[in-house]
Amino acid sequence: MAVPQDGLPARVRIHEVGARDGLQNEKNVVPTEVKAEFIHRLADAGLHTVEATSFVHPKWVPQLADAEQLMPLIGDVAARLPVLVPNERGLERALALGVREIAVFGSATESFAQANLNRTVDASLAMFEPVVAKARQAGATVRGYLSMCFGDPWEGPVPLPQVVGVARRLFDLGCTELSLGDTIGVATPGHVGALLTALGEAGLGPQVLAVHFHDTYGQALANTLAALRHGVTTVDASAGGLGGCPYARSATGNLATEDLVWMLNGLGIDTGVDLARLTATSVWMAGHLGRPSPSRTVRALSHEE
Amino acid sequence: MAVPQDGLPARVRIHEVGARDGLQNEKNVVPTEVKAEFIHRLADAGLHTVEATSFVHPKWVPQLADAEQLMPLIGDVAARLPVLVPNERGLERALALGVREIAVFGSATESFAQANLNRTVDASLAMFEPVVAKARQAGATVRGYLSMCFGDPWEGPVPLPQVVGVARRLFDLGCTELSLGDTIGVATPGHVGALLTALGEAGLGPQVLAVHFHDTYGQALANTLAALRHGVTTVDASAGGLGGCPYARSATGNLATEDLVWMLNGLGIDTGVDLARLTATSVWMAGHLGRPSPSRTVRALSHEE
Repeated sequence: MAVPQDGLPARVRIHEVGARDGLQNEKNVVPTEVKAEFIHRLADAGLHTVEATSFVHPKWVPQLADAEQLMPLIGDVAARLPVLVPNERGLERALALGVREIAVFGSATESFAQANLNRTVDASLAMFEPVVAKARQAGATVRGYLSMCFGDPWEGPVPLPQVVGVARRLFDLGCTELSLGDTIGVATPGHVGALLTALGEAGLGPQVLAVHFHDTYGQALANTLAALRHGVTTVDASAGGLGGCPYARSATGNLATEDLVWMLNGLGIDTGVDLARLTATSVWMAGHLGRPSPSRTVRALSHEE
Repeated sequence: MAVPQDGLPARVRIHEVGARDGLQNEKNVVPTEVKAEFIHRLADAGLHTVEATSFVHPKWVPQLADAEQLMPLIGDVAARLPVLVPNERGLERALALGVREIAVFGSATESFAQANLNRTVDASLAMFEPVVAKARQAGATVRGYLSMCFGDPWEGPVPLPQVVGVARRLFDLGCTELSLGDTIGVATPGHVGALLTALGEAGLGPQVLAVHFHDTYGQALANTLAALRHGVTTVDASAGGLGGCPYARSATGNLATEDLVWMLNGLGIDTGVDLARLTATSVWMAGHLGRPSPSRTVRALSHEE
């Protein structure tokens, strides 16, 4: 029963991250042909922004070492295909393949910047500066990911002004959209509202923001609802909850696209996604990964079959 | 980071259903001594309303066939211990043991009334009438459970006036609280708000209502947030998500108390629950059941140990 709600958007754009953020965090490496088919199936299910891969050095993320082979294999598809690039070398590789939407991955905390990027927050922003500038010169849009926006495993809760400060600098570099990441899944709805309010007061309104929640503590959908009430209309999610094995210690717990679509359908919010086709795609991918999807909606709908 | 939110309650009462609704839906039968210890541990963790068992005929629910043995074994405990009673015989058994809080279990739909109670909605209300009257005469409070308030597996979405009508009749019989059940987990936050609004217009305000969400499609916490915004302050949950095995076809998917407490803690809403003690209790019970807890918060916190 779809019930339109005052104060919620009529439409939400889902930024599908399963093929990149999802597969990057899966233990098994998926063949390039399967990835290409996955991306086509996601687009056919109505997801029109499908982050395809990462042009990171293959040594660091062997799961995505086939970026050069994957992009031409995808060919024509009815979706935008942004890719992650970590540095200028990655950008050059992506641009050479015709990519015109990129993303860079920053951290709101020093601890995670060191752990993930092996440099300080300042040094990471300095590294991104020529990447963003050259991308924009090439006509590409640039999404910024900002991880650890709520809590950090080493530093605990992250102060709002610290997040706002790094966010501001990413926009100043030339980012056109910023995805706020709850990398360890500790956020709750009030914290989400407080951060969005603080960002708005700094001139960063919901129209340039996306939210990227992890379901580690089961909070991702409640947090999404809070973000929608604050005007956010772009939500990151991962088909089938890829990248978040529920029983793995390393679980990242990405919000499952199907769980998100179930809620948005019920709220009468348009996404363009065909939930049955998407669920079938996630069941198909789960077969390739050799384990069931952690998405509750995928499990419930596929049990019904 | 606890962030108090305008429009949300300062305190939520959790009606813990793990020992009854949870264990009733688990395949393995737990020894009576373990149940008694479980209830003590839940009370020690700060849960002050712990539904203890059901005085249903042992033939129907063998998992709870030991109600007569369990209640004396619990002895003194710092919690209210309501029990479910299906009929007058069950009420007599409960009252004889000194129980002074009971619950009856009704259905908003004819299909589920037939499937679960083997009679029409009218006939089930007629069966409850003397139960509620005699319970009130004996000085007991009576909680009504109303199942299938949102969707029904046979009938689909349940019209709001139908739910309001049965709810009204349960209060007319003498129920002092009504728990609105999303038995198959299909509700979404807008639907929750619409039902609470319709009930309020019929004179049934949030102060006499509780919500009972299932996480079958991952919506339970988002739905809870919507209910809190509509003034509800009593929320049913099951420690460790008992009764909802994530990979079982029969999954009922009870909202895990730990996931709920994580969200409420973050919102600065007092529950009185010690999350670490509760998580330890659910890990202990998972050992007795021989499978991991489906609660994401239990898994995340116990992985940290």
